[in-house]
Amino acid sequence: MKILPIRIFRWIEIKLNKVRRMIIVLKPKTKKEDIQKVVEKIKEKGLKPVEFQGDERIVIHVLGKVTDDMPAPFQSMECVEQVMRILKPYKLASKEHHAQRSVVKVGDVTIGNGEITVIAGPCSAENEEQVMKSARILKEMGVKIMRASVFKPRTSPYDFQGMGIEGLKLLKKVGEKTGILTETEVMDVRDVPIAAEYVDILRVGARNMQNFDLLKEMGKIDKPVILKRGMAATIKEFIMASEYILMNGNKNVILCERGIRTFETAYRNTLDINAVPLLKQETHLPVIVDPSHAAGRRDIIPAICKAAISAGADGLLVEMHPKPEEALSDGAQSLNPEELKKLLKELKPVCEAVGKRMSI
Amino acid sequence: MKILPIRIFRWIEIKLNKVRRMIIVLKPKTKKEDIQKVVEKIKEKGLKPVEFQGDERIVIHVLGKVTDDMPAPFQSMECVEQVMRILKPYKLASKEHHAQRSVVKVGDVTIGNGEITVIAGPCSAENEEQVMKSARILKEMGVKIMRASVFKPRTSPYDFQGMGIEGLKLLKKVGEKTGILTETEVMDVRDVPIAAEYVDILRVGARNMQNFDLLKEMGKIDKPVILKRGMAATIKEFIMASEYILMNGNKNVILCERGIRTFETAYRNTLDINAVPLLKQETHLPVIVDPSHAAGRRDIIPAICKAAISAGADGLLVEMHPKPEEALSDGAQSLNPEELKKLLKELKPVCEAVGKRMSI
Amino acid sequence: MKILPIRIFRWIEIKLNKVRRMIIVLKPKTKKEDIQKVVEKIKEKGLKPVEFQGDERIVIHVLGKVTDDMPAPFQSMECVEQVMRILKPYKLASKEHHAQRSVVKVGDVTIGNGEITVIAGPCSAENEEQVMKSARILKEMGVKIMRASVFKPRTSPYDFQGMGIEGLKLLKKVGEKTGILTETEVMDVRDVPIAAEYVDILRVGARNMQNFDLLKEMGKIDKPVILKRGMAATIKEFIMASEYILMNGNKNVILCERGIRTFETAYRNTLDINAVPLLKQETHLPVIVDPSHAAGRRDIIPAICKAAISAGADGLLVEMHPKPEEALSDGAQSLNPEELKKLLKELKPVCEAVGKRMSI
Amino acid sequence: MKILPIRIFRWIEIKLNKVRRMIIVLKPKTKKEDIQKVVEKIKEKGLKPVEFQGDERIVIHVLGKVTDDMPAPFQSMECVEQVMRILKPYKLASKEHHAQRSVVKVGDVTIGNGEITVIAGPCSAENEEQVMKSARILKEMGVKIMRASVFKPRTSPYDFQGMGIEGLKLLKKVGEKTGILTETEVMDVRDVPIAAEYVDILRVGARNMQNFDLLKEMGKIDKPVILKRGMAATIKEFIMASEYILMNGNKNVILCERGIRTFETAYRNTLDINAVPLLKQETHLPVIVDPSHAAGRRDIIPAICKAAISAGADGLLVEMHPKPEEALSDGAQSLNPEELKKLLKELKPVCEAVGKRMSI
Repeated sequence: MKILPIRIFRWIEIKLNKVRRMIIVLKPKTKKEDIQKVVEKIKEKGLKPVEFQGDERIVIHVLGKVTDDMPAPFQSMECVEQVMRILKPYKLASKEHHAQRSVVKVGDVTIGNGEITVIAGPCSAENEEQVMKSARILKEMGVKIMRASVFKPRTSPYDFQGMGIEGLKLLKKVGEKTGILTETEVMDVRDVPIAAEYVDILRVGARNMQNFDLLKEMGKIDKPVILKRGMAATIKEFIMASEYILMNGNKNVILCERGIRTFETAYRNTLDINAVPLLKQETHLPVIVDPSHAAGRRDIIPAICKAAISAGADGLLVEMHPKPEEALSDGAQSLNPEELKKLLKELKPVCEAVGKRMSI
Repeated sequence: MKILPIRIFRWIEIKLNKVRRMIIVLKPKTKKEDIQKVVEKIKEKGLKPVEFQGDERIVIHVLGKVTDDMPAPFQSMECVEQVMRILKPYKLASKEHHAQRSVVKVGDVTIGNGEITVIAGPCSAENEEQVMKSARILKEMGVKIMRASVFKPRTSPYDFQGMGIEGLKLLKKVGEKTGILTETEVMDVRDVPIAAEYVDILRVGARNMQNFDLLKEMGKIDKPVILKRGMAATIKEFIMASEYILMNGNKNVILCERGIRTFETAYRNTLDINAVPLLKQETHLPVIVDPSHAAGRRDIIPAICKAAISAGADGLLVEMHPKPEEALSDGAQSLNPEELKKLLKELKPVCEAVGKRMSI
Repeated sequence: MKILPIRIFRWIEIKLNKVRRMIIVLKPKTKKEDIQKVVEKIKEKGLKPVEFQGDERIVIHVLGKVTDDMPAPFQSMECVEQVMRILKPYKLASKEHHAQRSVVKVGDVTIGNGEITVIAGPCSAENEEQVMKSARILKEMGVKIMRASVFKPRTSPYDFQGMGIEGLKLLKKVGEKTGILTETEVMDVRDVPIAAEYVDILRVGARNMQNFDLLKEMGKIDKPVILKRGMAATIKEFIMASEYILMNGNKNVILCERGIRTFETAYRNTLDINAVPLLKQETHLPVIVDPSHAAGRRDIIPAICKAAISAGADGLLVEMHPKPEEALSDGAQSLNPEELKKLLKELKPVCEAVGKRMSI
Repeated sequence: MKILPIRIFRWIEIKLNKVRRMIIVLKPKTKKEDIQKVVEKIKEKGLKPVEFQGDERIVIHVLGKVTDDMPAPFQSMECVEQVMRILKPYKLASKEHHAQRSVVKVGDVTIGNGEITVIAGPCSAENEEQVMKSARILKEMGVKIMRASVFKPRTSPYDFQGMGIEGLKLLKKVGEKTGILTETEVMDVRDVPIAAEYVDILRVGARNMQNFDLLKEMGKIDKPVILKRGMAATIKEFIMASEYILMNGNKNVILCERGIRTFETAYRNTLDINAVPLLKQETHLPVIVDPSHAAGRRDIIPAICKAAISAGADGLLVEMHPKPEEALSDGAQSLNPEELKKLLKELKPVCEAVGKRMSI
């Protein structure tokens, strides 16, 4: 095979301490001049091509620092059949980057260190009475972090849109009065610094998982961020989204699996339980599960909470409303206080069965 | 309720001992003659129409024995906007039909009565040595039922297609020698009675979940049947498929969730953990989970097995191969004997945490 | 219809000038006091309950002004099996609201009036030479609007992120020099007013379809907005997103189908061709198709462009790069100038076959 | 790099006239003895390993005749990160195997040679009058092939199951009387030879696309077979299914895209229009489209029929019922005779616009 000079291989043997990340498969019967064009283009980019010839196809290994933009120009060449990448595209989130598991601390709560953290509360903050009541109920049960949205991403502009900044102030007030930590979603980049002043944990909702400007702003604050998986986001895209926050300086990222959109209509979403062990394996970040959005119906929530913990989740983000039947949003998927209490009790032995403990 | 004249309700109470199952919504501004046509058609079918008029749309309730074929002719009428059904379409599988949970017995094993049943074994029966070895390994661990396919549904006709009827005989032989119970998939209607002679449990694979002729044949045998969910089958379709077996006379049906096809490519399928509590709630049938096909990769199988049990599954169908690296099929998702042993040990406390016990 | 006392209908006819939008199905054997609770709750909300009793279930029609928040509190009641809505949730976008088709004008181009508008250009603005060259090539072919992104939503933070505001200025300059109209994506709410000064049409990308704050800002400008469908957004959610822009005052909204995420991996997305006629039927807004993202591979783009036009689309949004093999993004799905020219020529008879004309 | 003996490369240069189809990527820091195990296993299978070493990972190319079973044993080895295949898995269906497009002939109709073939008729054969009436209506319009199912794959066992073998006889009778060609679905392997006697074209339904025993039987008859894509089948699986028929001896296979199952609920399925040009490009088989199942609603059928033809389809499989509002199945998606007539007229210019002609 004349096209493969022995020199090349020696060069590989001797010099090649670089990451090899791309393999280009050419179409059968590609002409020499076309192969040459591919080879030239690889070289132009400062990379090293290594050709391999079978009887039907030529495969070129590209050695060197292959960036994420590189496959594209080759994919569009007429003679190229396939371009394959080998190494993983994420860095800061990967376990290879950071071998120890990350532990996120907020107040006296630690997430990701073997204790199961339950974050619970109403879908939306509706008024002072409801928020205060929720906080007291939760404190009494031992729940240390309360969720409550004040900016609501609603499919319809005619639905309740949340209390807004008034809600942020209310959360702060309730936090101070009751000692509960607070968690809320931020949707607008302009609200990030304000929310970071008023609440303890910020959340990026599923619809904004790839709102990259929001992710960047989240990277600039010093409060922990819960990043929810987009409803059609792959695991890879999910981890890449966390990378946007991490690379902007905020290391306190918590991944939250909350169900994906599938063909099934019996539930609001389908909880992707496979994601839990895989995210734990691929990243060093804590992983929690939101069973409320994953189910969208109250009846199966206890079962999937147990499943989440057993699969390795570090915590839960559960909707609880003092009176679900009066909730302004998501009542159908909110537990009432008794149901949550019962659930917490049932979760205890499950936590222990997988070597963890409840933080309650 | 003053707004509703008492007579209406009396009429319903007295006359209407029928199932009401259909609501027809007409388009705005439907003409009187068109309404009349809908009404006439309802009557022709021996049903009772009850009109309700708002200011924009007329809604007609159809009372009487509405069969599954009935919505269609109305849906295709020009003036009809929507036809809605109300009652559930399945009967024999529903908890309303059969309030007590069904327990399937095979040999000295019972499935669905609080004991977790683990069915394990190689994806395919490959040869006598491999099957015998698998059986012995399993028996030693306390596993009482061995899975092993002899008819293989392979995407490619060029892949290993299974041992066929020779494999059935081998399973019988191994069962007799070792005392293990055997389970295998049947794909061809013509093989159902033969397989029923040789093995203890028959399986309908995911690709055949809506092979209705196969389901009917499965309804005619006296061996238990494991029905796997189709990879894009809704919960409703899954339960309806079990109905085909039940109505043909075989009451020993076990539902098996094995992952659904979604956009995610990190795993072979996405385990639909929501389905476990929902199937338990909607039907009286035992529900098991196949983590091997749901994951398609060995590394996350232990985690999702624990999740399945915690979510309420009655058992597991797991691939184990004496030497996964030599398996003729599905090696990447097969546990090796040590991994299975470790998993069984880890599952024990999880079973107990949810009030069940291992049958091992 | 003897079975229904006339009085009922008179009562409905006379009193009921309200939209009826909700039907509540109760579980079998619901107790009288529970029914009463549902009825009371309906009344508290100022609505009228109308009960219907079959032999197994009670159905309550709720008459009056049912808002989108109302089903939730009922869904979460123990005795409620199902809550169904009847009318459509969108208003301003619906054909019922606005019977005539909307036509969007920009410069001397009209979109939605029977002329097929082709918007073409590079995925990203990369530098002045490339943008100027693209504009000249397009003008020469008769293409009047050039797309070019300056803010890039990239899965990876390590990929090219776009030229930013410099790019906006460049687009304005190129527009002035060549007379071409310009179109670009905006991702950050803070960039909306700036972009509206520099370019002729703004775009909301698929990842931001439910970035509601961005939609609201888009509603406040006086430039046309192309709203791309989210990759897992339903038709209903897509139309509801347009409603956010419309209700904030901007009537110049163009819907863009760009492929949805499915299990299929042979293409980047799956073009949802069904959506084209359905969106045209449900709304009065112009509908265009982006074949480049829907395919993600150049080879099938011409075929699906023809399909889009035949199905009723008002235009196309196609990626063209002077040298696709050198593109910094999306090279694999960009046509080169010759391919675009050939496509435009082939599209002409297709446009005519469905009673439209090319604006070229 | 000591692990890579120069000899290996010479051997490649000189000897390697084989298909190279597999690349094995090892995990970082794989030990020498583990690499050796992989290498040994490759050699045991009669294949040639060629190692490539970067600084993080070793990649082994496997040269020789790699069968579809081979990746599995490597995937399950602890030290293996990824196994990639390169060549396409299908053979007989590929254009590389058979460069000319296949044309299927039935009676005086040819499918795949530039004429658009419309196959139309009722979802189900219901009775002699309906079938005869349908045939006469179709003949009068110039439609030469009538579809009508006699074996019905119904989700519910309580729905109409079809006329069965009586229906086959009826189709033959109607064919003889009217001169129309007939097409019907077969679900049970035992019915294949019988159906092949009575009708002109046999159909494999979407639910049976991977009923491999049925595919094999279809390969043994001498009548053309329409193979419908499974509702969650990838393009690759679809083509592989056709391979089962082709390799059993029947070369007259027609592929039928009929919509795939996605998250969208506005239509019964989502027509995958991308599949049309891709199937034409990858295979030499004729490709038709079933708009009726892809839409599930009559209103958008004309639009997507035009789209299908424009995208390159060779024909359509459309449901038409003399009286859709009385159909025993699928009435909502059946055109009535006037609608079909209008559609055929509108399709004519579309066919011509893409260089084809109507066979009517």
